[in-house]
Amino acid sequence: MKIAVSGKGGVGKTTIVALLGYLYKEEGKKVILVDADTNGNLASALGYRSAQITPVSEMKELIEERVGSGGIFKLNCRVDDIPEEYSLNLEGMRLLVIGGVKRGGSGCACPQNTFVRNLIASLMLEKDEVVILDMEAGIEHLGRATAKAVEVMLVVTEPGMRSINTALEIERLAKDIGIEMVFVVGNKIRSQKEISFIEDNISLSILGFISYNEGLIEIDMKGEAVFSNKKAAEEVYKIKKRLEIKDFV
Amino acid sequence: MKIAVSGKGGVGKTTIVALLGYLYKEEGKKVILVDADTNGNLASALGYRSAQITPVSEMKELIEERVGSGGIFKLNCRVDDIPEEYSLNLEGMRLLVIGGVKRGGSGCACPQNTFVRNLIASLMLEKDEVVILDMEAGIEHLGRATAKAVEVMLVVTEPGMRSINTALEIERLAKDIGIEMVFVVGNKIRSQKEISFIEDNISLSILGFISYNEGLIEIDMKGEAVFSNKKAAEEVYKIKKRLEIKDFV
Repeated sequence: MKIAVSGKGGVGKTTIVALLGYLYKEEGKKVILVDADTNGNLASALGYRSAQITPVSEMKELIEERVGSGGIFKLNCRVDDIPEEYSLNLEGMRLLVIGGVKRGGSGCACPQNTFVRNLIASLMLEKDEVVILDMEAGIEHLGRATAKAVEVMLVVTEPGMRSINTALEIERLAKDIGIEMVFVVGNKIRSQKEISFIEDNISLSILGFISYNEGLIEIDMKGEAVFSNKKAAEEVYKIKKRLEIKDFV
Repeated sequence: MKIAVSGKGGVGKTTIVALLGYLYKEEGKKVILVDADTNGNLASALGYRSAQITPVSEMKELIEERVGSGGIFKLNCRVDDIPEEYSLNLEGMRLLVIGGVKRGGSGCACPQNTFVRNLIASLMLEKDEVVILDMEAGIEHLGRATAKAVEVMLVVTEPGMRSINTALEIERLAKDIGIEMVFVVGNKIRSQKEISFIEDNISLSILGFISYNEGLIEIDMKGEAVFSNKKAAEEVYKIKKRLEIKDFV
């Protein structure tokens, strides 16, 4: 399964990607996490303070050499074809990062996005493999169709009109690029009133809700892994279960 | 003065832009607000639920016709040269929006960003005019140098390593594109411990701190203007005062 997690900036995309990845790993799946945000911090959410990973934007030549040629991806490339040295291996999870902006004024992130789109599209997964993409904030990646090859798009929203409007835009644009399964996750919930607010303002299927959690703020300040927060892990576990039901219906 | 407000997604950029704009307007300045995020919601933070504004990406032809030709901007164009119909007039504030993604897979936001960069660079301001840009989340806009022509970059951060790392990246990249004045604003502060955390992890000049404010969450749920929250307005007023001192030192 290939899953992309998107939403307005700051809604909790990275935290949910890290927790989902951890839960799939715990049940024995091979997990590939892709940080598709130039300003990504997925390594940090996994508890790695200064991860030394070569970004995918820099491994382009090497990948072409190994899995394709002339810039064209070999169809049906496998996860194992991605060189070990270009991903961080986290006991059952592998992390790839799209890479940042090297210098101010050096250009946009279009080349990296094209590369990630082709890589995800060409990856043929085994039954026990799961790919989870942590998308950039907002909607520009949908113009770029970076996540075109995923089966499921999870859209994270807080209780507030601004992130709900982003969620609705994402749904509209995801359909354009052919993603049929778009589900919502409500995050930072402090009351039943806030759950109702999201339910009233969104007609998409809602997979579940995650509580406002000061423990996660503490974890971010300490630079620890988000899955050390048991409550958050339990709440995301329920969402993962619901996703599996939806996926097979 | 031309100011850009940037930072990780969800740290409160848009709220601070709306509050700063309101405060400058209240003291009699002419304020031009630019929503430079494809997923922008500045209109919403100003209390406009469904603002009908033609995005700048669609006014390109008209601007070229009025202020330049052949895609080249006329130097020293004035705020008054921007057609009234392409901005929302909010009693002393004018709002321009960069525009969203029309269709999934239709491309990136590079053309809009180039347009905004040229527009901001060519605007010759009178003494009583202030331009404030609400940047896209993260750092890609710095690769694009969208805010190249601003004098001041405010970087908003929460108490957490992830948004602090973004702030440090923004500082580094802002220098590359020639922005000398980069200041930090700490937002969503719940304790003295969180203030110390930001101070300990950032060496940039900190202009001030804004409290975690449940009132702003309520306002977002109701779709009201953020400046109806008196506490937030007072805190941003102090930051504005400090900015004026820094600006003239």
